[in-house]
Amino acid sequence: QIDHFGFDENGTFQQRYLVADQHWKKDSGPILFYTGNEGDITWFCNNTGFMWDVAEELNAMLVFAEHRYYGESLPFGNESFSDSKHLNYLTSEQALADFAVLVEYLKTTIAGAQHSPVIAIGGSYGGMLAAWFRMKYPHVVVGALAASAPIWQFGDLVPCGTFFSIVTNDFKKSGAGCSESIRNSWNAINHLSSTDAGLQWLSNTFHLCSPLKNLQDAAVLKNWLSETWVNLAMVNYPYKADFLQPLPAWPIQEVCKFMKDPSLSDKLLLQNVFQAVNLYYNYTGEASCLDVSQTATKSLGEMGWYYQACTEMVMPLCTDGVHDMFEPQKWDFDALSDECYRMWGVRPRLSWILSMYGGKNISSHSNIIFSNGGLDPWSAGGVTQNITNSLVAVVIPDGAHHLDLRSRNPLDPKSVQQARALEICLMKQWIEKARHSH
Amino acid sequence: QIDHFGFDENGTFQQRYLVADQHWKKDSGPILFYTGNEGDITWFCNNTGFMWDVAEELNAMLVFAEHRYYGESLPFGNESFSDSKHLNYLTSEQALADFAVLVEYLKTTIAGAQHSPVIAIGGSYGGMLAAWFRMKYPHVVVGALAASAPIWQFGDLVPCGTFFSIVTNDFKKSGAGCSESIRNSWNAINHLSSTDAGLQWLSNTFHLCSPLKNLQDAAVLKNWLSETWVNLAMVNYPYKADFLQPLPAWPIQEVCKFMKDPSLSDKLLLQNVFQAVNLYYNYTGEASCLDVSQTATKSLGEMGWYYQACTEMVMPLCTDGVHDMFEPQKWDFDALSDECYRMWGVRPRLSWILSMYGGKNISSHSNIIFSNGGLDPWSAGGVTQNITNSLVAVVIPDGAHHLDLRSRNPLDPKSVQQARALEICLMKQWIEKARHSH
Repeated sequence: QIDHFGFDENGTFQQRYLVADQHWKKDSGPILFYTGNEGDITWFCNNTGFMWDVAEELNAMLVFAEHRYYGESLPFGNESFSDSKHLNYLTSEQALADFAVLVEYLKTTIAGAQHSPVIAIGGSYGGMLAAWFRMKYPHVVVGALAASAPIWQFGDLVPCGTFFSIVTNDFKKSGAGCSESIRNSWNAINHLSSTDAGLQWLSNTFHLCSPLKNLQDAAVLKNWLSETWVNLAMVNYPYKADFLQPLPAWPIQEVCKFMKDPSLSDKLLLQNVFQAVNLYYNYTGEASCLDVSQTATKSLGEMGWYYQACTEMVMPLCTDGVHDMFEPQKWDFDALSDECYRMWGVRPRLSWILSMYGGKNISSHSNIIFSNGGLDPWSAGGVTQNITNSLVAVVIPDGAHHLDLRSRNPLDPKSVQQARALEICLMKQWIEKARHSH
Repeated sequence: QIDHFGFDENGTFQQRYLVADQHWKKDSGPILFYTGNEGDITWFCNNTGFMWDVAEELNAMLVFAEHRYYGESLPFGNESFSDSKHLNYLTSEQALADFAVLVEYLKTTIAGAQHSPVIAIGGSYGGMLAAWFRMKYPHVVVGALAASAPIWQFGDLVPCGTFFSIVTNDFKKSGAGCSESIRNSWNAINHLSSTDAGLQWLSNTFHLCSPLKNLQDAAVLKNWLSETWVNLAMVNYPYKADFLQPLPAWPIQEVCKFMKDPSLSDKLLLQNVFQAVNLYYNYTGEASCLDVSQTATKSLGEMGWYYQACTEMVMPLCTDGVHDMFEPQKWDFDALSDECYRMWGVRPRLSWILSMYGGKNISSHSNIIFSNGGLDPWSAGGVTQNITNSLVAVVIPDGAHHLDLRSRNPLDPKSVQQARALEICLMKQWIEKARHSH
């Protein structure tokens, strides 16, 4: 159903989902249901090794459901992003309703699945969806594992600056002079971008695919660099991995090896910064130039997420340059709103997500695990303390963005091993209890 | 917000609500929040004496919120019912979102209300909304009193025939020969309506405002009679009252005084049936003729409810003429769907309400009282057994439709007095617990 919440638009669309049932025990084994987030579901499927690792132990069927408007699940095909009318059904509520209807469909069509307890699992935005799925459809899922889900990064629930201060701390801890080098880089760019020669030098030095022409382009460069540091914080995994980009183990330590001296002259400093970002964008050595319009895998649906961030998913973020290594930037809702209106013809609603999902007042819910990595900037908006006996916070001090959802790895720190053990133990309890009550 | 679940329609409308705060204790007193149903909120306000009766004891503020598309809360003014596009926002989900946003607005704008625990109260469809409000927005309301709420009158959760068998039992118990007279009346009408003279006789005998012209009109007459018996079952209160119509105490006993002999000839039988319905429609003696297009107060919004019954609120009902006193009629979803499409350009979705609100799988929720009257046909789809310690069923054997929500009355049976006492006791527990946790 394209619109679950209205009857005027009665069209339907094909939602993609992936099923793996080789370890599933018919009639009793649970279903682990991945609540797909803003991207191609096959990519999430391949980056959620945790589910594959536990399938046998839990006798579980795995289902990965694609989020509407991403991957191949486009309600209006190529027209899906054409205007605000076609985008109107891209909301978390519609996505959750899709998931609820899909679970019920699977339960009634797969022989032996009717009484299978279902557990929602997701990371990041998908983690929010997993938590919200349990909150709003507790009759559909017996529990949820919400990994690195910043469900409190809304309104004024948490300070807007914590996110970037966590990024900064990751760099500070990863090498002397590292975060200071980055902090100093902004003024170096500002100096250079004030002249055409400087813009040219920056374009060459950063091996940019399109040369910088003016101050506006320089601002794009700075944003791109900021996003790069944020992304590095998110994927600062303890082993070689390829999530947003192919990267070595502990990639921040690697890039910090290039940025040891923050007191260098502008050009020397920025040459080091280039070495650092080049490691992120060109670890395989295949990139002939760097593209400031792209910071991560193309498997993420940037368009869709941009729209969502312009409607429901308004997450206030800010920097002050003191508690973080970024250029100071206040949170400016009005500017966002105007930009969203220009871009999509819609305006964000700041408080809706709080009205809908309860903000911090969620204690009447049950069976949700909120896991967060201490290295992950998104932990700033995450639940990092138990709320009740059955709303459990799992903290992984040396984990980055939903490390616990990744495949087991010999280089896993003890903290993520323990986190997964607790997650599995709690999931088994939910399954057992569901079996019992059935 | 006209559309809480999409951003393309960004319009707003004025929602009416009534507040009574004379007994409210600022800073600690609770808010009793009536979740308005399908009609003018002032009418519900005047027919929910229970809230007025308990306000002082609970130090409570009373709020009565009007449901969108009813009374004066019309999203598009006079255009609200013009077509399926304008009707698109008439759903229970939008209404619940209205309530959530309204509660938050009241809490932030009324001094001393910020930490007031809120309890949802409603009857009938409003009782469903109260229960669903607690289920979906437990961060907004600490509990709900759902009076005569047939939340299970959907899908195949309950047999479709129970509703009419309860109506029948009410008549059977209220006078010898009564339900049999009604059962026999249908064939009497069928016989008479096969001739023009018979149609004329029926029109005269029933004092109809518009004479019957054909078999189709005769079918309308029969539907109107059926609805009248159903309505009498709903308002079979132990004292003189004016809910759907002004009526004497135990009105079914009164109408049954006219229908003691089911073996009479067609015409004599139907003359008695007329006396019975005339009591319902003309107890005050003011009606000059009877109008088969109207069965209850005009304070109910028939148009809106018809649309809702054609979209989300699909409640299967059926009769067999054996376990009930009605003409046999199977439940026919396809016929309903076609009629809805002709009437509104939309088709009902049979299973959506189950996917959304969980059907019978609601045990993970808490703090909901489901009260039901044994005389009330809607108890057929109600929760009449405790589900958990905090999902409590209250049964009032000699109560009709949400008798417990009405004002205290010297003629109240003991069962409704006890029901109210339990309801108040549980509400106090919720309030106490909320105060404690705050």
